[in-house]
Amino acid sequence: MAKKVAILAVNPVNGFGLFQYLEAFFENGIPYKVFAVADSKEIKTNSGITMFADDVIANLKGHEDEYDALVFSCGDAIPKFGENIEKQYNQDMMMVIKTFGEKGKLMIGHCAAAMIFEMAGLTESKKVALHPLAKAAIQNGIATDENFEIDGNLYTAQTENTIWTMMPKILDVLK
Amino acid sequence: MAKKVAILAVNPVNGFGLFQYLEAFFENGIPYKVFAVADSKEIKTNSGITMFADDVIANLKGHEDEYDALVFSCGDAIPKFGENIEKQYNQDMMMVIKTFGEKGKLMIGHCAAAMIFEMAGLTESKKVALHPLAKAAIQNGIATDENFEIDGNLYTAQTENTIWTMMPKILDVLK
Repeated sequence: MAKKVAILAVNPVNGFGLFQYLEAFFENGIPYKVFAVADSKEIKTNSGITMFADDVIANLKGHEDEYDALVFSCGDAIPKFGENIEKQYNQDMMMVIKTFGEKGKLMIGHCAAAMIFEMAGLTESKKVALHPLAKAAIQNGIATDENFEIDGNLYTAQTENTIWTMMPKILDVLK
Repeated sequence: MAKKVAILAVNPVNGFGLFQYLEAFFENGIPYKVFAVADSKEIKTNSGITMFADDVIANLKGHEDEYDALVFSCGDAIPKFGENIEKQYNQDMMMVIKTFGEKGKLMIGHCAAAMIFEMAGLTESKKVALHPLAKAAIQNGIATDENFEIDGNLYTAQTENTIWTMMPKILDVLK
């Protein structure tokens, strides 16, 4: 049976990245639910389009066991993550990611995903791919310059432009 | 100066295709406006996400000269195009595409875009790339099995999975 995926969409989110996962999961019969990392389900793409997630991150807390995998879908919210780190939705996001990771669930993402996974304490001695500008943030994991890295339960792609190189592996493990 | 692009999003639209254009245009400073091929700006992606276009196709009629290029962003609405062809929004779409094409503006799209361009009378003796299942619909143009084709003002990609192979050429001509 296909695994169930919780997809975290930051606000704003890179639509190219987000919908690359969503359409592939849809076409392959992989069930998913999209959670806005925000106070409201209404978020925007980097490109300015208003879209609605299925739910908000606060409602994923305590329901981690209903999912087998998590996707962190990066976007222009992340360069400003530092100044918004105290916001409840970001605190919720970090707790949810930590819980998923510690339960050994599949952790998937691109761009700054590996940096967020590192902040949640999930990258120790693991190879990760991430945006070149975020590489310096990786101290416990091993940041590489590859299009993607798969190490244990971590599936990380360098940017939204390289997700497609990792997608067959993602689909294999989720189907 | 960057060219201005009218993007037509069918309902439902493939989000992977649509946001591949939108995020690339956004990042490259290419101005665009998204028109829903529907009665309302509220449409859905194939993957079930509700999103809002900037306007509806009816309001693009008579404003074609404000744009330099058109993108036809395909989706699951198209396999049912035949049974909905009499709907006003589809009639408007066909008129808008015909007008853009006859004015020699850049015509960009993927999947069944070339079939729609053919129906609008814009493909005569021109090479086009499109979804293998739609190839038989091409009688005036020349359907190929390439990832993409550029012939005159027509820029067509086989599917959303091959848009990236054509994107550098699209950005070059639009910037």
